[in-house]
Order: sequence, then structure tokens, then C-alpha cells
Amino acid sequence: MANAQGFCTHALSFDYGQRHRAELDAAARVAMALGARSHRVIKLDLRAIGGSALTADIAVPEEPTSGIPITYVPARNTVFLSLGLGLAEVLGASDLFIGVNAVDYSGYPDCRPDFIDAFERLAQLATRAQVEGREFRVHAPIIQFSKADIVRTGIAHGIDFSITVSCYQPDDEGRACGKCDACRLRAQGFSEASVADPTRYF
Amino acid sequence: MANAQGFCTHALSFDYGQRHRAELDAAARVAMALGARSHRVIKLDLRAIGGSALTADIAVPEEPTSGIPITYVPARNTVFLSLGLGLAEVLGASDLFIGVNAVDYSGYPDCRPDFIDAFERLAQLATRAQVEGREFRVHAPIIQFSKADIVRTGIAHGIDFSITVSCYQPDDEGRACGKCDACRLRAQGFSEASVADPTRYF
Repeated sequence: MANAQGFCTHALSFDYGQRHRAELDAAARVAMALGARSHRVIKLDLRAIGGSALTADIAVPEEPTSGIPITYVPARNTVFLSLGLGLAEVLGASDLFIGVNAVDYSGYPDCRPDFIDAFERLAQLATRAQVEGREFRVHAPIIQFSKADIVRTGIAHGIDFSITVSCYQPDDEGRACGKCDACRLRAQGFSEASVADPTRYF
Repeated sequence: MANAQGFCTHALSFDYGQRHRAELDAAARVAMALGARSHRVIKLDLRAIGGSALTADIAVPEEPTSGIPITYVPARNTVFLSLGLGLAEVLGASDLFIGVNAVDYSGYPDCRPDFIDAFERLAQLATRAQVEGREFRVHAPIIQFSKADIVRTGIAHGIDFSITVSCYQPDDEGRACGKCDACRLRAQGFSEASVADPTRYF
């Protein structure tokens, strides 16, 4: 979507000790397939903080739960956006894109429009931008999409969903469990969009 | 200062590829001397971003410069506070303390009161806090202090400044260069406070 808006895109991923490291290989494949100008991976040891099924020795739930799920990683999107902001400053960029999604967002507090707006205000004050008279924009183009909207929009932009990974506990080859929240929401998206699900399950 | 206000304190440091890694040993010494409940070091590879004399192969200036100095690390305090926020969530803490200083701050945009206020608003939205009806506070108790105030307050709280490191390019034993911005401002603080400078210079 950033490409389609005419942006020259630089992709950024995080190797944060996540259980589903296979998503990093997927990110590299996707960045290349979409023609990103660069793809960086920042190493960041969130295991020193723990507190999530994605970064600590806590099992990923295979049944729906209520409230904020145990797969929530404390302050993760704040950390990701902060590092994106740092890279943007070095590149001289003023626009950050993040793929958070609020509609069927599983209850993560840092996937809400209010959060994105607050970060945009912070970004303006946190960096050289204000001093230099530039404006930082934080774009979250799929924040209000249903998973079905995401599938349809991805296909309209030529995404091959078979090279992407959503699962929280994929195997080493990036094949999905089909049981975790992320798998359930993804499968529902394909179903509601009436698109055949290309996900590789183990 | 947090101890004196009755907080149970957990210390957090960042191993971010900084030239002056000796500050991490100093942080451990200080945390122990002040009786912090814990001291964690999060590894974070800011060299993947670069753009600063502290994390890239750019020389540290030894003369005063104007504007935002080359030792500014893009978005560093935003990243640090974000990770602090994550740890606070895991610990169930609602108060973050950060030692930024705006008065003789060398021109860093993320050392200003407006920045701290914006981060406090973000913190409220970014985490479980709001959902659970708690309030996050971000304290920056020395933000308006002169370096002389910092020296006086430190001494009043029993700090042994000989175990601390401010220099941007110390040697492996934590001895200071005496020439960089950080050294100059620190020495000026001792001088203005009429306190003998206990810094070990190389």
C-alpha cells in the first residue's frame, strides 16, 4: 500500500526472541517480492523482559480466551515504532507504516487508533523533525480492516499469501499450526473473503 | 531519588552497541550501591540503524558544536522508555524514572519536558494500564536541574560519583577522556557546585 502511494519503502523487522522466528524469513521474502529498497532486521532481546507466551516459556493457547491474551508482548508496538522512528531519522524519512489491525485485534491495547495518534504526537517531539520543521506521519492503513478486507486488499496488490506467516507457533519451515488465535483469525479472513486459503499447515 | 520517595526500584540498562560500554559496568555498580531490587541489561542492536557518533564509525567531537550534536542517537530515549514500559507492565509497576536533563542538555530533542509528557500520554494508551484502570507516570526528576544541581543532589543522596561514567569515549576501565561534551558538562557541574571532581581521567 505504501508502494502504491508512491513511497520509496524500506522494510524493518525485529528479531526479538519471538517463538515464531519463521516470520523473519517470511518478512525477507515479502520485502523482496514487493521491491522494498532495503530490509533490515534489528536484534532486540525482549526475553529479558518476558511476560508473554511469545517470548517466555508460556504455552500459546489453542482455544479462544477473553481479555488481553497471554500472547500480548508488553509495549511491543511502542518499541517497534520507536525503532522505526530512529531508522526514519537516519534515512531522512517522515512517514512510518505499521500493519496493526484494530477490528479483530484480539484485545491488544497497542493496536488501537488512539495509540497510533499518540505515537504520532510523540514522534513529532522525540526527534529532529520539529527542530527541522518536518512532520512525522504514522500510517496504519489496515487498522480498521476486517481480516477479509486484508485478504482482498492483499490480493488486489498482488500479494502471494503462501509466502507469508501469521502463526504464533509455526514449525521451522514456516508451516502453521492452524490452532492459535493468529491462525484462526487468518483462516476466517480467507473464508469470509471467499478466497482459497494458501496457508501451509503442518 | 526514587528510593527516597519510597519506591521499590528495579534498574534497567541498555547494551545498544554504544561506544562507551563502560557505562554498563558503572550502571551495575551504581544499582548495587543504591540497593536496587534488580538490574537488567537489555541487548538491542542500534548499530543496525547507525547515524550517531555513539553507534556508528563517526568520531566523537572534542570541541563544542552547535545544533543537534552528532552524538545524538536517533529516537534513543523513546526506545529506552518503551522498553522500560514493557518491563513495568511485566512487574506490575506504574512508575518509570528516567534521568534525562533539559537545562544543559546539548540539544537533544528527546530530553525535553514536552517529550516526557507526550510519552506519558502514550504509555497510558499503549499498555494494559488503561484497560485495568491504572495510571502510568513518567518521572524525570532531574530534567530541569543544572549539572551543579545534579552534583549537589547526588551527594545529598550519598552517591559516590567516582563509580559513575559520563564520558562518550571512556577507556575499558571506565576512565574518562575529559574532552567530549559529556566530560565538559560534567566537569563544569563539579566546578559550579564547588565539589572536588572525583572522575578518573585517562
